[in-house]
Amino acid sequence: MSQNKVFIATSIDGFIADKEGGIDWLHSIPNPEGDDMGYASFMNEIDALVMGRNTFETVCSFDIDWPYSKPVFVLSNSLSDIPDKYEGKAFLVKGTLTEILDEIHSKGYDHLYIDGGSTIQNFLKEELIDTLIITQIPILLGGGISLFGELPSSQKFKCVETKHFLGSVSQSRFEKVAEL
Amino acid sequence: MSQNKVFIATSIDGFIADKEGGIDWLHSIPNPEGDDMGYASFMNEIDALVMGRNTFETVCSFDIDWPYSKPVFVLSNSLSDIPDKYEGKAFLVKGTLTEILDEIHSKGYDHLYIDGGSTIQNFLKEELIDTLIITQIPILLGGGISLFGELPSSQKFKCVETKHFLGSVSQSRFEKVAEL
Repeated sequence: MSQNKVFIATSIDGFIADKEGGIDWLHSIPNPEGDDMGYASFMNEIDALVMGRNTFETVCSFDIDWPYSKPVFVLSNSLSDIPDKYEGKAFLVKGTLTEILDEIHSKGYDHLYIDGGSTIQNFLKEELIDTLIITQIPILLGGGISLFGELPSSQKFKCVETKHFLGSVSQSRFEKVAEL
Repeated sequence: MSQNKVFIATSIDGFIADKEGGIDWLHSIPNPEGDDMGYASFMNEIDALVMGRNTFETVCSFDIDWPYSKPVFVLSNSLSDIPDKYEGKAFLVKGTLTEILDEIHSKGYDHLYIDGGSTIQNFLKEELIDTLIITQIPILLGGGISLFGELPSSQKFKCVETKHFLGSVSQSRFEKVAEL
């Protein structure tokens, strides 16, 4: 069965970037041992990533090696192709979310990491997210880019697990509950 | 030392009431044993409650006995007095939050439960909340009345504890971190 999963950090008030678009606050909790708070384990759960153009370009702009060992599908109706240096790593996909998912599933990738603020919101709007793993950084930002947007109707989840990291960070795993 | 504390439930997306103002979803998780999820223990931490007129009138409208064993201070600049039936239980307070807190502290009440959406937002705006205990009901409402509002600047907390109730609900306790 295919599954679309989100693994993301927010402020207490649900923002993924502050009023200036900054994300420095994500690293405001001392982490001397470099605890990955479940990231590597989560990456083992998924077959591929799906992200929007903004997130892709942000990752490309980092002065680091390509960070993903699994295929990355980039949603964009404006990009015409992926830069050569990401050949074999990132793949452009176009169309409705259903068309895109069909295409990715047909390639054998079923467990997908859906990433990037507006991509997550678009998947949520179409009730296409099955798992939400939200790491809450204990800060109130009071404004910024919200993880959550308006939804046509409510969606029930079950919080199957809650963890506490670094003496100061909580992480909850929500699994979608099928409506009867 | 005086302390202002919040104990409240939100949806995953931070709402305290749904698009129609409803709160039925708060009781959407089966709770056969009537687990109070720390409410009685929290009530033992506080000396008095502070709430806005809306919350007070909502509590009064419930077809139940007065639910509080501690004094309730009602913030209102429009109410002229508290109905007779709540004499000795609820007390009207007026003025700025600092004036109101001075008045309540002078009566010997130092640990306060700050309740009600707009009252909490007003206290947060003035950086007057020390403890936030947030119980997250695993539902995305996609709209409604948000617990959180715009803040002039960010506020750092520490998540000192995270609990998991009823196999499906997470609760985090955030304590304010003094800025250096």
